Amino acid sequence: MNFGIAIFPSKKLQDLTNSYRKRYDAHYKLIPPHVTLKSTFTSTEEDIKRISTILKDISKAYEPFTLKVLKVSTFQPINNVIYLKIDPNEELVRLHEALHTEELGKEKPYTFIPHLTIGQNLSDKEMSDVLGQLTLMKFEHEEIIDRFHLLYQLDNGTWTVYETFLLGEDL
Amino acid sequence: MNFGIAIFPSKKLQDLTNSYRKRYDAHYKLIPPHVTLKSTFTSTEEDIKRISTILKDISKAYEPFTLKVLKVSTFQPINNVIYLKIDPNEELVRLHEALHTEELGKEKPYTFIPHLTIGQNLSDKEMSDVLGQLTLMKFEHEEIIDRFHLLYQLDNGTWTVYETFLLGEDL
Repeated sequence: MNFGIAIFPSKKLQDLTNSYRKRYDAHYKLIPPHVTLKSTFTSTEEDIKRISTILKDISKAYEPFTLKVLKVSTFQPINNVIYLKIDPNEELVRLHEALHTEELGKEKPYTFIPHLTIGQNLSDKEMSDVLGQLTLMKFEHEEIIDRFHLLYQLDNGTWTVYETFLLGEDL
Repeated sequence: MNFGIAIFPSKKLQDLTNSYRKRYDAHYKLIPPHVTLKSTFTSTEEDIKRISTILKDISKAYEPFTLKVLKVSTFQPINNVIYLKIDPNEELVRLHEALHTEELGKEKPYTFIPHLTIGQNLSDKEMSDVLGQLTLMKFEHEEIIDRFHLLYQLDNGTWTVYETFLLGEDL
């Protein structure tokens, strides 16, 4: 079973991101706009309870933090993804690190560049058109993130939330 | 802002439901298969924190319970919805009641008939065809439900999870 860990930003930021994803991101229908904290990993339904316990401890140990959108950027020449770049501030980077330990799996398929995807699998022509439009626009936005989510993938490729973890909550 | 409260059943049951929803349910792309516990209600982002606190208390007071799929059924003649009927056992009915109090909003647009929608907005002809096929099939399934989710709706009609509540957890 495929699992992943992500942040859903505010409705406002999700709606903004979706207004681009609708046209430019084939994953638009599979998952709401999100910042990936841990890429797809496989686990069993049994083992996920152990992982959930670890995530609960991590979430308590880290405080809510500011998510800041910096600008529109791209992963070219690696791939034709356009995204909103998120400030890799210390809190976000430390949380990402905490989710890549021995017991949760250390493997990082990519260097951590926190982002909200707004387009992917674009042709070079589309890519350059879209990027041309968007780099003229200002994306200045800040908000507080106080939670992250553990999700699993259904057979049709969509993602369902398994559990939410609140940062800094000592229940 | 629109909110709702729902149960996501196991991946197995979601995948089964989606195999029908894909063809027969226009909401297929908006939300994973779910059992609605509280229909759409409006709230502000500020007030939802108060509601979240109430939901946490409710979730602690109710234990995990068995969700049992009984059969394929329909809301005809009210509307052309086909669904998997869920056994309205005492635990599920009591949880539903707990989510319809004075402080959470008592309004119930429908009598509570717990179900997993597999088709909706079908023509009478489609309805009778699909129902004819499905009533021949056995849907016997039981599983334990140990959580429910508070969700909010984005401008494009899709739903994002705000928070998960674990039943019977005394943290």
